Amino acid sequence: MRAAILAVGTELLSTDRLDTNSLRLTSVLERHGVALRHKAVVGDEEAEIAAALAEAARRAELVLVSGGLGPTADDVTREACARWLGRPLEEDPALWAAIERRFASLGRTPAGNNRRQAMVVAGATVLHNPRGTAPGQRVEADGVTVFLFPGVPFELETLVELHLVPWLAERSGGRGRERRTVRVAMRPESDVDRELEPAYAEFGRETITVLSSPGEVKVRLTVEGAEEERLVRLDQMAGRVRELLGEAVYGEGEELVLEQVVGGLLAARGLTVATAESCTGGLLAERLTRVPGSSRYFPGGVVAYADAQKVSLLGVPAPELAEHGAVSEEVARALAEGVRRRLGTDFGLGVTGVAGPEGGSDEKPVGTVHVALAGPSGVRHRRLRLPGDRVRVRWQATQAALEMLRLALGEATPEGRP
Amino acid sequence: MRAAILAVGTELLSTDRLDTNSLRLTSVLERHGVALRHKAVVGDEEAEIAAALAEAARRAELVLVSGGLGPTADDVTREACARWLGRPLEEDPALWAAIERRFASLGRTPAGNNRRQAMVVAGATVLHNPRGTAPGQRVEADGVTVFLFPGVPFELETLVELHLVPWLAERSGGRGRERRTVRVAMRPESDVDRELEPAYAEFGRETITVLSSPGEVKVRLTVEGAEEERLVRLDQMAGRVRELLGEAVYGEGEELVLEQVVGGLLAARGLTVATAESCTGGLLAERLTRVPGSSRYFPGGVVAYADAQKVSLLGVPAPELAEHGAVSEEVARALAEGVRRRLGTDFGLGVTGVAGPEGGSDEKPVGTVHVALAGPSGVRHRRLRLPGDRVRVRWQATQAALEMLRLALGEATPEGRP
Repeated sequence: MRAAILAVGTELLSTDRLDTNSLRLTSVLERHGVALRHKAVVGDEEAEIAAALAEAARRAELVLVSGGLGPTADDVTREACARWLGRPLEEDPALWAAIERRFASLGRTPAGNNRRQAMVVAGATVLHNPRGTAPGQRVEADGVTVFLFPGVPFELETLVELHLVPWLAERSGGRGRERRTVRVAMRPESDVDRELEPAYAEFGRETITVLSSPGEVKVRLTVEGAEEERLVRLDQMAGRVRELLGEAVYGEGEELVLEQVVGGLLAARGLTVATAESCTGGLLAERLTRVPGSSRYFPGGVVAYADAQKVSLLGVPAPELAEHGAVSEEVARALAEGVRRRLGTDFGLGVTGVAGPEGGSDEKPVGTVHVALAGPSGVRHRRLRLPGDRVRVRWQATQAALEMLRLALGEATPEGRP
Repeated sequence: MRAAILAVGTELLSTDRLDTNSLRLTSVLERHGVALRHKAVVGDEEAEIAAALAEAARRAELVLVSGGLGPTADDVTREACARWLGRPLEEDPALWAAIERRFASLGRTPAGNNRRQAMVVAGATVLHNPRGTAPGQRVEADGVTVFLFPGVPFELETLVELHLVPWLAERSGGRGRERRTVRVAMRPESDVDRELEPAYAEFGRETITVLSSPGEVKVRLTVEGAEEERLVRLDQMAGRVRELLGEAVYGEGEELVLEQVVGGLLAARGLTVATAESCTGGLLAERLTRVPGSSRYFPGGVVAYADAQKVSLLGVPAPELAEHGAVSEEVARALAEGVRRRLGTDFGLGVTGVAGPEGGSDEKPVGTVHVALAGPSGVRHRRLRLPGDRVRVRWQATQAALEMLRLALGEATPEGRP
């Protein structure tokens, strides 16, 4: 089966808004093994929408439309679909009664234009919308199935789960595509790629994709087949990838982030960490506290941006600062130890570096960062040369600090790996 | 003139990538008063691209295509365009010589497939690409002008500036559309809207758009006409908007952010600020230090997430904490005063609140935030009830803190308004 997606809305043709509903629809299509052939965006004009529907139906057996189902005069997707098919629009009495009830429960009376939301393309199946007054519709015509969804993202998501997913599942006979993402921090993409070679040979190169972004490598596993097979196969593949990459893997999940994993490990072990930041300016503390419940393991941190504050707030020895400079192994270690001592935590993380764009030198160019971790068994340190601009350098520096802590937590109790 | 945009690339039909080149193209079209009618995305298939070109040419006089001009076998936009027009592809000797030179300057020899990048649709004008080996092409056919651009964003941007902008400027005869954005923080959209009513009456409602996001309102001004008229008109409009909104306006610019304005004011006045954060967890310090050069006015800050750290790091009196709780006016004031005293800065900002999802109560629900600013003339305080989830509450809390500081800096030297 081939699919096309059509997003309707004049605002989606401006610079302010992008059609992102199509990503949600695409992921559902991918999961069911349906190939997406075409995406389009048109404004709220009946003739334009009708033309775009005809074009979509020429290239695909499944056409997914979002937007233009509201009550106002510029919502004309229903009319456009009827015009394209040469069918009338008909009022659905049950739909109108439901709209009246919905308004009544809010103590209001529907306006005249709400009546438009009870209009259905002749022959269409109404798709119940529990989250709004705009129902979806499913229309069959000449071997093409068209779904009309509202454009509001959470309404669209609900209708997709309630109506599109079961429809696709029935047609795919349980066959489909599944993905899993194995995540690695602060390792070069080329190293990960080389280490994965046995897995490429074993499972097929096309089933494993390595995606890289600053400080992060995602290993994306894709399998096709029947549902149970898929899960078994993904488990096998993920197991092999973890075997090959070892402790570099910090977790699995498309949405997972390193601070969640570190937070989970700290909470599970009843340990705490404090942060002492220079070049990252608070980003490390901010990432740790993005995670709900982080107060269990993060009592606080210090942003010591100026040298004087490194001395007065964290007890970094002034002679060390003078001798080695703020961006040095010695100062990173003193920051980590200082904040651990000052806040009485199990671990202390220290970060100092040159984020740029100014402040670099031949000896310490922009991107030079020192990260140190002080813990019960001493202090460890890592020197980094990070590529990119100020934003990327700061991000990768926090990524390196979190990864250092994660690895130390893994060692502490080897049986307790995440 | 009407325009259509076509993005070519199979990867743009996946969940990993969105076509964002179209935003760049749209903004250039808007500036020249050209209406965008349709956007589409197709994969790297010759017949599909040719069909999409035909569809675009039916609805627009200007068709902008991005992607599919590289040297590899799946780059087939050139071939598709030639097929659609029924014209041959011809090798351009000058283009091939330029590709050879470019490779020679890197000490390399072009591969056979690089030859494909010297192929031009018969009758097309070659658009020089100083940033890559894929030149653009401009083709005229039956009243439709088609631009082919490479898909790599920085190459596309360069070609747009070099070749599309002059072409549009010539055709628009200097007429076009210009925008300016006036920015306001932490004011309700409805208030801004009401205060702008005289400007709506004076300049026409359609020329002023109010866009709202958490903690921020953008007033977007749009004018059409000849170039000099546009600038004069925008200055008039912006002046009137500033008059009506008064000190609530923090600056102008689509990309401007509040921390830049606050940083600029501090630097200009030679003043400094330190931060004491609880619920925002470092985000306030992080925003201040995102701005390059922030070390001139920001020596550092403290993230006092746990109550014990509020006492030990910042000297918040333990009895106040016990009596009023960490989320209280008294503690916000003590945080601001404590960090100002501890770091010896001109100003101290304190933030404490309930970011959620846990920790709310009837008396202090999620979104309750206290912000305090300690300065040379005393301490001021603001209590907020912020809507939204953890991420939004934290963001708006930092926005409120920065805005409080900005207003205080404005007062300090009224003649020195930004």
